[in-house]
Amino acid sequence: MNKIEHIGIAVKNIEESNILFTKILGRKPYKSEQVDLEGVQTSFFKIGKNKIELVAATSATSPISKFLKKNSEGIHHIAIDVSDITAEMNRLKREGIRLLSDQPKRGADAKLICFLHPKDTNGVLIELCQQV
Amino acid sequence: MNKIEHIGIAVKNIEESNILFTKILGRKPYKSEQVDLEGVQTSFFKIGKNKIELVAATSATSPISKFLKKNSEGIHHIAIDVSDITAEMNRLKREGIRLLSDQPKRGADAKLICFLHPKDTNGVLIELCQQV
Repeated sequence: MNKIEHIGIAVKNIEESNILFTKILGRKPYKSEQVDLEGVQTSFFKIGKNKIELVAATSATSPISKFLKKNSEGIHHIAIDVSDITAEMNRLKREGIRLLSDQPKRGADAKLICFLHPKDTNGVLIELCQQV
Repeated sequence: MNKIEHIGIAVKNIEESNILFTKILGRKPYKSEQVDLEGVQTSFFKIGKNKIELVAATSATSPISKFLKKNSEGIHHIAIDVSDITAEMNRLKREGIRLLSDQPKRGADAKLICFLHPKDTNGVLIELCQQV
């Protein structure tokens, strides 16, 4: 595990939150990306070697839609950069930590990703991500 | 704003969560610290130049006790490292973002800290911190 790659923040309206986080962070998002497979629209802000990712839903079945039905806007997940996602997934399985997918999935920002089950992580949704 | 300094995770039992996060992160906490002023016990894990901070309450009036009465265990705040906390606080005030204290306060890990009002940040409790 190399660094905190990003913190994902679930928001209702990405345009309004882009304006708000530009004020908070004192810088503009450097890119935005739509991930149709996950039904999300994302914006990325750089803070040194870390990122803040705003995530809004683009469909009613998106995980972000489901999250915002149960929760207020706020931190949705944290992502940790790893060099070998498959090796980390195997290590975690051996430790008894459940994963939300058996294989790495393709995520935003040219990454292979896998989420850990939040019931096994004190309620924190943790994403592993590997640059591809 | 230089980097994500740490992610603070509110936990009920710091000893149990130390064991759990040692499994998840594949490394042990490198230090623990009690902050009597805030009524918290903390443990720190390093991930590259970033940290995960576990925070448990040591008193019923601790902000973490209050958080855990309303919420499950999980992410409590994110902390962003800044070079000049007073300048950042003034910049944020000019942007219309409310702060939870007028002056920087002394936090864990030899830091001056100030929290932004989560009602002005899409519900995210953001801490500014400056190494002292």
